[in-house]
Amino acid sequence: MVYNNKAQLGIEREDGQHILVLEEAFRQLLPETDCPADMLEAIHRGEAFLKNANDVLKQATTMPEENFWVDPKEIKRCAPIAKTPKNIMCVGKNYAAHAIELGSDADIPDHPLIFTKPHTSIAGHGQSISLQRDVSEQVDYEGEVAVVIGRQGAKIKKEEAWDYVFGITLLNDLTARDLQSRHKQFFLGKGLDGFSPIGPVVVTDVDEVALADERLTTKVNGELRQSAPLTDMIFDIPTLIHIISRGMTLEPGDIIATGTPAGVGKGMDPPQYLRPGDDVSIYMPLIGTLENKMKE
Amino acid sequence: MVYNNKAQLGIEREDGQHILVLEEAFRQLLPETDCPADMLEAIHRGEAFLKNANDVLKQATTMPEENFWVDPKEIKRCAPIAKTPKNIMCVGKNYAAHAIELGSDADIPDHPLIFTKPHTSIAGHGQSISLQRDVSEQVDYEGEVAVVIGRQGAKIKKEEAWDYVFGITLLNDLTARDLQSRHKQFFLGKGLDGFSPIGPVVVTDVDEVALADERLTTKVNGELRQSAPLTDMIFDIPTLIHIISRGMTLEPGDIIATGTPAGVGKGMDPPQYLRPGDDVSIYMPLIGTLENKMKE
Repeated sequence: MVYNNKAQLGIEREDGQHILVLEEAFRQLLPETDCPADMLEAIHRGEAFLKNANDVLKQATTMPEENFWVDPKEIKRCAPIAKTPKNIMCVGKNYAAHAIELGSDADIPDHPLIFTKPHTSIAGHGQSISLQRDVSEQVDYEGEVAVVIGRQGAKIKKEEAWDYVFGITLLNDLTARDLQSRHKQFFLGKGLDGFSPIGPVVVTDVDEVALADERLTTKVNGELRQSAPLTDMIFDIPTLIHIISRGMTLEPGDIIATGTPAGVGKGMDPPQYLRPGDDVSIYMPLIGTLENKMKE
Repeated sequence: MVYNNKAQLGIEREDGQHILVLEEAFRQLLPETDCPADMLEAIHRGEAFLKNANDVLKQATTMPEENFWVDPKEIKRCAPIAKTPKNIMCVGKNYAAHAIELGSDADIPDHPLIFTKPHTSIAGHGQSISLQRDVSEQVDYEGEVAVVIGRQGAKIKKEEAWDYVFGITLLNDLTARDLQSRHKQFFLGKGLDGFSPIGPVVVTDVDEVALADERLTTKVNGELRQSAPLTDMIFDIPTLIHIISRGMTLEPGDIIATGTPAGVGKGMDPPQYLRPGDDVSIYMPLIGTLENKMKE
């Protein structure tokens, strides 16, 4: 988040009404320990950071009047991670109904399609996103759950995959459909500046059980477009981590976006692409809402 | 390069027999200026660095006995850039004869295919590369010229593209053909650890004219496999920079690999994939030789 004109870590209470300014809370409640400067540093510190943050949060919760608590209105969101070590890795066609809406049953993949989006495409919750009308006339939304990797690893077994997860967040895999089809490989159509809003928060301490009843929804100007349970993924999160890491080392701060459900604009009849002024909001109960307005 | 157990900058003289240890030369000949710690810092300093380095080189050339000159045998090569800001961007099927050898005339692209390779795949000249036989049985070479971006920019015009180039180098776009076809999008088959050897040097001060008569060749165990003039590229370097940067900001240190000529192992009859012990060397007169041995 940005508070006091400074990008820094915060913890949002479950009621959504109170934000803990973590650096200030560390300074007062855990003065012998430096607060990490950003999420990437927090991830690198791993369990030690999570323990410290939990301790600080527990203490702070008993002191609701202290100045380390601020109102959500006093902060601005920014992307939880501004620069991932690798490009964001994304999974194409990971919900069968979405594969079918863009093609046919034949498009349901036997193996995950993985493409990437560069860090220059990352944006935060609430940020206006340029549709880059000079480059594309067919910008589309794709609401997704994204996994933030917490530990370096390769050849990660499915049954150990959650040990490598720092947390989860939401990602809007904005896509220039015309560029995507023109250039065949997805990178150019997916990688435009601002085309990867991420947030609003990273939820730690998640696993299969926590996600079992979660449903991902996307609205455009309040109209429901996408809605699916996470259990609809063809390749679940442990499978994705296993397959991607078979020959490639994953690093703390790497992000894997897990694919989008049916209901994208391109799948509508006629296709409905995003226009300046459109508001896209992606919601999952466990994480909250990632919302961005489109502009010229 | 690595010299004295330390990764640092060096300049290779054209005869290939003398390496200038740049930090030591700066210390003695330009003591008021710090030598950049690595290539990325040098690129960020831009023209100022190139001017300083040229001045130092000129002076040093008159002092051939000084200790800032070392024999190539005293150094080890490492990748010129260990961590690119974005994944390495690569162009698929940018030589018509290569597009045809993997398919047919119909595979010659009208628009460049761009995919990426993560920094975790970067390796240096001379480094042994694991074929990762547990993950792939069809690892193939692809000799390529790669462009190193020198300045941040977006919407770069073709006629200004060379102003954004810091230099050029060679890249072996090692590819697990089985993963590439299984996962459709190229990232997984291209992104394995060690699958992007880069080097041996970055040649600065290049442009269209300098490259006009250059020919790129690849040998496997001394046998010529690929040989083509750079003028065979379907999309030349300025066109690639223009198209990639239309909606995406390029950054200092980004690398664009410009595609591979005909003659890859998959195109042979029967296909010839790399085996442990194979030696792949990529050569271009202006740059030199990038050579790597494959291992289990």
